[in-house]
Amino acid sequence: VESEPGDIAHIGHAELLTPDLDASLRFLTGVLGMAEVAREGQSVHLRGYGDYQRCTLKLTASEQAGLGHLGLRARGPAALERLVSRLEASGAGAGWQDGDIGHGPSYRAHTPGGHAFEVYFETERYDAAAEDRSPARNQFARRGGPGVGVKRLDHTNLMSADVAADRVFAEKVLGYRTLDISIDDAGRETGAWTSTTIAPLELVFVADHSTRTGRLHHLAFWVDTREEVLRAADIFVDHGVEIELAPARHTIGSGFFLYGFEPGGNRIEVTTGTDLVYDPDAPVRVWTAAERAAGIGWGTAFPESWRSYGTPV
Amino acid sequence: VESEPGDIAHIGHAELLTPDLDASLRFLTGVLGMAEVAREGQSVHLRGYGDYQRCTLKLTASEQAGLGHLGLRARGPAALERLVSRLEASGAGAGWQDGDIGHGPSYRAHTPGGHAFEVYFETERYDAAAEDRSPARNQFARRGGPGVGVKRLDHTNLMSADVAADRVFAEKVLGYRTLDISIDDAGRETGAWTSTTIAPLELVFVADHSTRTGRLHHLAFWVDTREEVLRAADIFVDHGVEIELAPARHTIGSGFFLYGFEPGGNRIEVTTGTDLVYDPDAPVRVWTAAERAAGIGWGTAFPESWRSYGTPV
Amino acid sequence: VESEPGDIAHIGHAELLTPDLDASLRFLTGVLGMAEVAREGQSVHLRGYGDYQRCTLKLTASEQAGLGHLGLRARGPAALERLVSRLEASGAGAGWQDGDIGHGPSYRAHTPGGHAFEVYFETERYDAAAEDRSPARNQFARRGGPGVGVKRLDHTNLMSADVAADRVFAEKVLGYRTLDISIDDAGRETGAWTSTTIAPLELVFVADHSTRTGRLHHLAFWVDTREEVLRAADIFVDHGVEIELAPARHTIGSGFFLYGFEPGGNRIEVTTGTDLVYDPDAPVRVWTAAERAAGIGWGTAFPESWRSYGTPV
Amino acid sequence: VESEPGDIAHIGHAELLTPDLDASLRFLTGVLGMAEVAREGQSVHLRGYGDYQRCTLKLTASEQAGLGHLGLRARGPAALERLVSRLEASGAGAGWQDGDIGHGPSYRAHTPGGHAFEVYFETERYDAAAEDRSPARNQFARRGGPGVGVKRLDHTNLMSADVAADRVFAEKVLGYRTLDISIDDAGRETGAWTSTTIAPLELVFVADHSTRTGRLHHLAFWVDTREEVLRAADIFVDHGVEIELAPARHTIGSGFFLYGFEPGGNRIEVTTGTDLVYDPDAPVRVWTAAERAAGIGWGTAFPESWRSYGTPV
Repeated sequence: VESEPGDIAHIGHAELLTPDLDASLRFLTGVLGMAEVAREGQSVHLRGYGDYQRCTLKLTASEQAGLGHLGLRARGPAALERLVSRLEASGAGAGWQDGDIGHGPSYRAHTPGGHAFEVYFETERYDAAAEDRSPARNQFARRGGPGVGVKRLDHTNLMSADVAADRVFAEKVLGYRTLDISIDDAGRETGAWTSTTIAPLELVFVADHSTRTGRLHHLAFWVDTREEVLRAADIFVDHGVEIELAPARHTIGSGFFLYGFEPGGNRIEVTTGTDLVYDPDAPVRVWTAAERAAGIGWGTAFPESWRSYGTPV
Repeated sequence: VESEPGDIAHIGHAELLTPDLDASLRFLTGVLGMAEVAREGQSVHLRGYGDYQRCTLKLTASEQAGLGHLGLRARGPAALERLVSRLEASGAGAGWQDGDIGHGPSYRAHTPGGHAFEVYFETERYDAAAEDRSPARNQFARRGGPGVGVKRLDHTNLMSADVAADRVFAEKVLGYRTLDISIDDAGRETGAWTSTTIAPLELVFVADHSTRTGRLHHLAFWVDTREEVLRAADIFVDHGVEIELAPARHTIGSGFFLYGFEPGGNRIEVTTGTDLVYDPDAPVRVWTAAERAAGIGWGTAFPESWRSYGTPV
Repeated sequence: VESEPGDIAHIGHAELLTPDLDASLRFLTGVLGMAEVAREGQSVHLRGYGDYQRCTLKLTASEQAGLGHLGLRARGPAALERLVSRLEASGAGAGWQDGDIGHGPSYRAHTPGGHAFEVYFETERYDAAAEDRSPARNQFARRGGPGVGVKRLDHTNLMSADVAADRVFAEKVLGYRTLDISIDDAGRETGAWTSTTIAPLELVFVADHSTRTGRLHHLAFWVDTREEVLRAADIFVDHGVEIELAPARHTIGSGFFLYGFEPGGNRIEVTTGTDLVYDPDAPVRVWTAAERAAGIGWGTAFPESWRSYGTPV
Repeated sequence: VESEPGDIAHIGHAELLTPDLDASLRFLTGVLGMAEVAREGQSVHLRGYGDYQRCTLKLTASEQAGLGHLGLRARGPAALERLVSRLEASGAGAGWQDGDIGHGPSYRAHTPGGHAFEVYFETERYDAAAEDRSPARNQFARRGGPGVGVKRLDHTNLMSADVAADRVFAEKVLGYRTLDISIDDAGRETGAWTSTTIAPLELVFVADHSTRTGRLHHLAFWVDTREEVLRAADIFVDHGVEIELAPARHTIGSGFFLYGFEPGGNRIEVTTGTDLVYDPDAPVRVWTAAERAAGIGWGTAFPESWRSYGTPV
């Protein structure tokens, strides 16, 4: 079968749960440099300067850290209908919702691994007020705020008890394309990197060796240059943010990264520099445990926490 | 109508014509840092270190500089069939060809503006010999050669007597999506930026104010960082390459660029840093002449040659 | 004679005059990202995050824009004494002053071209309060504030009716070393680049073709990377700062730059990337008018304002 | 006492010993991108594209890897005389030598720790042949060669059984200024960073816990940007160069680095981005073992080899 782009355009928003709303918010605005755009109940809505939508991150107070849900934006109304049909047919669907600040009606569902998500199409584009407007009409907001200055929500990495099951669901039901798979010595999948665009990864699953379900490995935010990732590391240090993995380069996807923990406990990545995949039928690469054990890109070792830590803890 | 990704995956290769094969080849290998992979007749086949295909640039000796043809890679066999049907129906088609070094059968056609192109699917992926192989399996070749070290063929800018006609052809027959249009004071289109991916531009048309047809404005090669574009400018200076426009940032697409002329006379761009467009139904932006006259990105003025020069001269 | 480092360590501070204190201050803090450290009378004292001293820029309300004075920090008490002796002997001296916020007693003088300056040694090092302190003991302040985030005051470019006279004064009286000189077709000096360190320029003189004296061409602030200069250009655009010259590279000194005007009218440079000069007896380079007319680094032309504009206007 | 710049301008050249001349040479030219300028006997002379001197690295075949000698260039003839007087008085001197390819007469001596060095002033500046000449007169050679493209020899790190003794020798006899000292829990010096310029380090001593003397910790080569260090890591990977420590940032000096081993066994650093020290009387910073154990810059741990490995092994 020839590869076809799926019905999902991209991860449109994410809801992050935190046991310390104030501290998490200070991190997201003061350190990552996101802008607060709305508040309602126990939630605050935020965006990066380059997000075309008004709301891309919903931060919600909760007993435990973790992922509230992912919002996957369909490529159009017909694509949304096809997605809902497949979700209903798969038994994963939970029904329509009224929408939320920043977007229209959405259809709720769960991955096999227990992560909540919704698909939606109608969205509110960001219309900057005069004081946040760039004279360049294709810049969604003014650049130059405090902190790292993340541009937009990028990818999500979900922990899964059965990576293969989640990957197949992403392929068959959601229409994602798999670019890379990692396996253990028994041949079991330990990771899967999927995308619906030329970006090499957007929805990633990694093995959860605990008995928990629905855990978040990390949310990633995009910056345009590696220099901004390096600067982000300095800013993390100066603001007391715990760095889990200093800037280096992944082998899979070639992304340049910085990993740290926001005060609520969720792992956050600042990333850029992935290799775009223009090849429409690129063979899926399968990486052995030995290859991955050889370390990241330049030989950097993953810390033990990388393999075990997720939220909820 | 909702936006749908087209049947074309990307510009798979280009043929560049030169009146001075040796000098153009020295530029492409010694200055841009491309690798020669094959020779046949009056043509040399080259690639960037990050091109997944064996051949992406065919340099052919010719009386005049210009574009020989563009090779557009279909997303799959069925997409190729659909493309050929539409090309035949449009009257633009010229028939099947046997293929060439690096790719299988292709179907030839012409744009309304007279640019030759072919659509194809079967391709030869680059299989690096031991001495050009990276231990990272997803790197197609060893990094660190001489010169700029361009990664891959990126976009193409074609000059057109009727931009609107070419744009509509690209949309209706080829399946491209238009992101930006520029107009003159009379409302006539002077430029159109189209893509089939989240990259904001791949096939670009700009007005040709001469009486020539089928002229090339420029071929663009990708590097991963703006620092590499800046370094490319130093390398151009030190190798006597004429710089038309020093590194700066476009408004449309936000790409960071360097423009110069290869010894055969064709305009070459080294580029990176465009803003990816994740919005599946982003409104087409229409830019007035006044907006474009305000200069590029940071106010840099376009030189007069930018508007008039193309190949053949 | 062998080259000897002079008695001056570096330009320790500068006083900038502005007819619009509030707007200039908003630019310096909100756009350049300097921190306000003190206020007194009509003056506000500021610093970059990497300045070791508490105060490096004094912004003073005045009828006209321009340079109030330069503060040159001596290498030590004995060096200060030698400097004062030479200033007194030269007739340029105007006497001791009590010091100011951030530094001890200083000796005032004037260059032949009429620019006020003072030499001093005693200074107050910046002792960051807890909320501005980096855990890295050799970082003077927390990184990650708003705007460009300039690191420190770098060099100063003064306009002079007689460049040669000012240069000789800088050499003989102040102990600067000249690295580059530019001349016009008549052989008259039109620019001189001097330094007391391995940085290729710190005190620069350029010809003033007007009848004014003591004018400022520009003050330059340092950032560590060219990427920060490029980002500064985006920030200038988004904050309505007039860009005179978009980022590019100088030939003399090889510095990467961005030039714009602060709201008070003074020209400001954001700079980095100069070539350090380790050669202790590097021959002085003399640049002809033809060489300079060839443009900057990559061929970028200087705008006419570059030659004529200074403050006071 | 006020700080005074010493009589040494900078490390002018280094001699590196290798048991595998061919392999080391291939690394230096093909991977680091240095240019071979001369051969004589068992030695090859090389330079970086930005070295003002003709020869800055002498590679010599030897039974064991290590440092042959360091060449310290005096600031002038009088400075050279003062240096020789102090070396003779100190008992460290070994007498005059005739010079070598690229430089004039030199005076040989040894550090307390047994490292051979020479002081010299007369040098041969690089006069590029036409094919290696940049049109920019202040660029010493053409840019854009293969590999990393190191600009110039930067600093040297020597292993010492008695760091304090070596540091005091560097200060009193050679005129270096100490910026940073690290100590162990017993208060003994484990490292000393000294310089004669605003660069924060040039001659560095670290504790040798073995019984060997005169060992080399590493030689460092400069590139202008952090992006070039990141690119160097890719090039090291693709050319099979063993990376000891992937790119990250030092706390002391703030330098951005990549460490690897050349085929002869010597540790090589590619570096940039140190914080210039303009403060003429900056207090010496003393770093405790606990502070250093906290890791480098962003928390990166030093590998065990860092503490123990030197050449000869």
